[in-house]
Amino acid sequence: MSETSPPILRLGIAGLGTVGMGVLRLIEANRELLEARAGRSIRITAVSARDAGKDRGMDLTPFAFESDMQALARREDVDVVIELVGGADGPALELARAALEGSKHLVTANKAMIAHHGMELAALSEQVSERAGCALKFEAAVAGGIPVVKGLREGTAANAVEEIYGILNGTCNYILTEMEASGADFADVLSEAQRLGYAEADPTFDIEGIDAAHKIAILAAIGFGAKLDFDAVRTAGITRVKAADIAQADALGFVIRLIAMADVERDESGRRSLLQRVRPCLVPITHPLAPVDGATNAVVAEGNFAGRLLFQGAGAGDNPTASAVVADIIDIARGERGAPFSIRTGALEAMPATEPGHRMERTYVRFTVADRPGVLAEIAAAMRDAGVSIASLLQQGHASDTGEDVLIAMVTHEGPERAIRDALALLEGSPSLSEAPLVLPILRD
Amino acid sequence: MSETSPPILRLGIAGLGTVGMGVLRLIEANRELLEARAGRSIRITAVSARDAGKDRGMDLTPFAFESDMQALARREDVDVVIELVGGADGPALELARAALEGSKHLVTANKAMIAHHGMELAALSEQVSERAGCALKFEAAVAGGIPVVKGLREGTAANAVEEIYGILNGTCNYILTEMEASGADFADVLSEAQRLGYAEADPTFDIEGIDAAHKIAILAAIGFGAKLDFDAVRTAGITRVKAADIAQADALGFVIRLIAMADVERDESGRRSLLQRVRPCLVPITHPLAPVDGATNAVVAEGNFAGRLLFQGAGAGDNPTASAVVADIIDIARGERGAPFSIRTGALEAMPATEPGHRMERTYVRFTVADRPGVLAEIAAAMRDAGVSIASLLQQGHASDTGEDVLIAMVTHEGPERAIRDALALLEGSPSLSEAPLVLPILRD
Repeated sequence: MSETSPPILRLGIAGLGTVGMGVLRLIEANRELLEARAGRSIRITAVSARDAGKDRGMDLTPFAFESDMQALARREDVDVVIELVGGADGPALELARAALEGSKHLVTANKAMIAHHGMELAALSEQVSERAGCALKFEAAVAGGIPVVKGLREGTAANAVEEIYGILNGTCNYILTEMEASGADFADVLSEAQRLGYAEADPTFDIEGIDAAHKIAILAAIGFGAKLDFDAVRTAGITRVKAADIAQADALGFVIRLIAMADVERDESGRRSLLQRVRPCLVPITHPLAPVDGATNAVVAEGNFAGRLLFQGAGAGDNPTASAVVADIIDIARGERGAPFSIRTGALEAMPATEPGHRMERTYVRFTVADRPGVLAEIAAAMRDAGVSIASLLQQGHASDTGEDVLIAMVTHEGPERAIRDALALLEGSPSLSEAPLVLPILRD
Repeated sequence: MSETSPPILRLGIAGLGTVGMGVLRLIEANRELLEARAGRSIRITAVSARDAGKDRGMDLTPFAFESDMQALARREDVDVVIELVGGADGPALELARAALEGSKHLVTANKAMIAHHGMELAALSEQVSERAGCALKFEAAVAGGIPVVKGLREGTAANAVEEIYGILNGTCNYILTEMEASGADFADVLSEAQRLGYAEADPTFDIEGIDAAHKIAILAAIGFGAKLDFDAVRTAGITRVKAADIAQADALGFVIRLIAMADVERDESGRRSLLQRVRPCLVPITHPLAPVDGATNAVVAEGNFAGRLLFQGAGAGDNPTASAVVADIIDIARGERGAPFSIRTGALEAMPATEPGHRMERTYVRFTVADRPGVLAEIAAAMRDAGVSIASLLQQGHASDTGEDVLIAMVTHEGPERAIRDALALLEGSPSLSEAPLVLPILRD
């Protein structure tokens, strides 16, 4: 290298789980390429993990080992701290703060931490940035190997983004598409997914939609220039979707997918409000998201000039996630800085949450009811009284082999969301209903 | 703004056709947003077009008007020259050189110019960059509003990219999907497309695959770190695809799409060679590219860690193209520089073109033959003698209502490409064939 070549970029990696080891393997496998693209040498100088002695199938002796993770952030020979520890708070957050306060660049794959503390960390990086040019980067926090954080932060930067939605949780998508393929029920497919490693031992964050909520909150902040507001995400998971719902949807020309979405609405005075949701939806089979199966993720962004953009790929896994982590490192090596959420954190707009009752949508509602006279009349009357217009209705056999319950699946004409809620309120407590009705909105094509 | 705010970024726009006017409209419509994202003010100071007086439906008096395009590049009050004139050489190229030599940033939507002169311009920008930090950007040159140049240059930067392929010409895709929907023949759909403005009066560049070849050559250079080599792209267009081929493909579970692709192969000594092609292919209906219809574009990039990534959106049109042009401007405003083709131009590898005869693929071959005894035996013998293994064969009616020709459609088992070529060489000049056979490879799922 010539005398004028830029300094080596020195990395400290905290967390040597599957993603951490993926990053080490990637840097080893693609080193020459990475350095050509980065325009400078990249070297891992230090690593940190709980257990120094554990056999990770790779020689770690070239790297300094810090058993105290915070010490990594204080090392003189680390320029970029790579946080792959996980958890919204605790050691990961302490490490992130220490890194930025110490004028290190921070790269993280931690969606929970960014969803909860992204505003604090971004503001911190910008403060530091004024003197030291520090970057905070989190491409790997959303949709694994798909460069969608960059896609929204830079690719659609010329657009007023009107809507962002997609399939952001691979576990749920795997379960739903397996249910679709096999006709099996949720619990069986979940067990199988756990056996195969597609679902965690405690799958709550995935199947209840919380993981997808973390991700859509991050994308919404970037796309809409909104202050990140994870608590405002309205979240419903997939645990109540039955094989019978999927069969019904199929018969009607839909698949069921867990859809995370966010959009912005203006009131008469021009004030913007933000709607963020995660919920299983009926997706028309002609929609670009319908063929997205297995652990694949896909994000749609609608821009006022670009139109509809789709980004699709592997949403999880050690290799795709490592790809995103190292893309961030190359960006840093190339000198790319700038606001983590596209707009300077102080200029992001605090937006109230939209009350979506007036939104027009078509809805699928499934009732599980006792098999006795008058039930259908009761449901139909509640719909009429709440002003819900029914497009189609199907009463089908028994909801389970053993029970006496019957399944009634209904699709409404387009109407305000609150009308369905009103109708279900009228039915609440009715002895005819064996369980709470399942309401799934129908995605527009 | 505070005293320390960065200077205004001043734009000079050359070319006020549909894309140029789209850029003006976008900057007017989204100005506040753009400036928040850019972190500084953006102002158009000068424009240039052939006809100053033409009514373009927008007030251009706020901007200085240069009737001499080259003068735009010399203006003191222009930091970024935006070349939207078009054409591989001539005034566009002169303007681009003048801009970079004058230490201006250059943004262009000109795929032909980049495909032919990208290496020269990139080297020029890098020379200048050492003293002035100049950027050369061309997101809009490939796939309209889809940020796929950025996707490959930055999003997949951590990967050895193994293959890039996709649908890169909206006109061809519109024609093929219209033929699919209507059953009409090529010439009729082309006329209709011209009437609707989806095809140019002279559609040669589109329908002969040259436009897609420009784009794949650009993506290949970025993705593989190869010197751009447009002349090496093997190009076939869609003019010979008949309605009968589309019907046959459909019956077999395929659609026909014009696919641009590039991949890299290593010989025993590790030396890399580059294969770049544009040709109509049979795409399995389960493939992510199969549902891509109308003027939509889509690009797949396979990375060794990220896996398969798909980028999809509007491939042309004034608004999507303007979105890409202005995204480049924001990148420049944010200080993003770096090698236009991801790796420093001098370090891009000059790769010989792959001779693909040994590549294994399945193939669709359609013969138009005279309706007389022995033709099928002649074709079958040629296939046998060349070692082509036939998976299915269908002889169907007459190729045209008026003629006496018969259509024979054949699908082969996987075999080396050259075997088909050998078989067709054996048939060359045969009086049984009414026209040259049409060979369409089958895309892997």
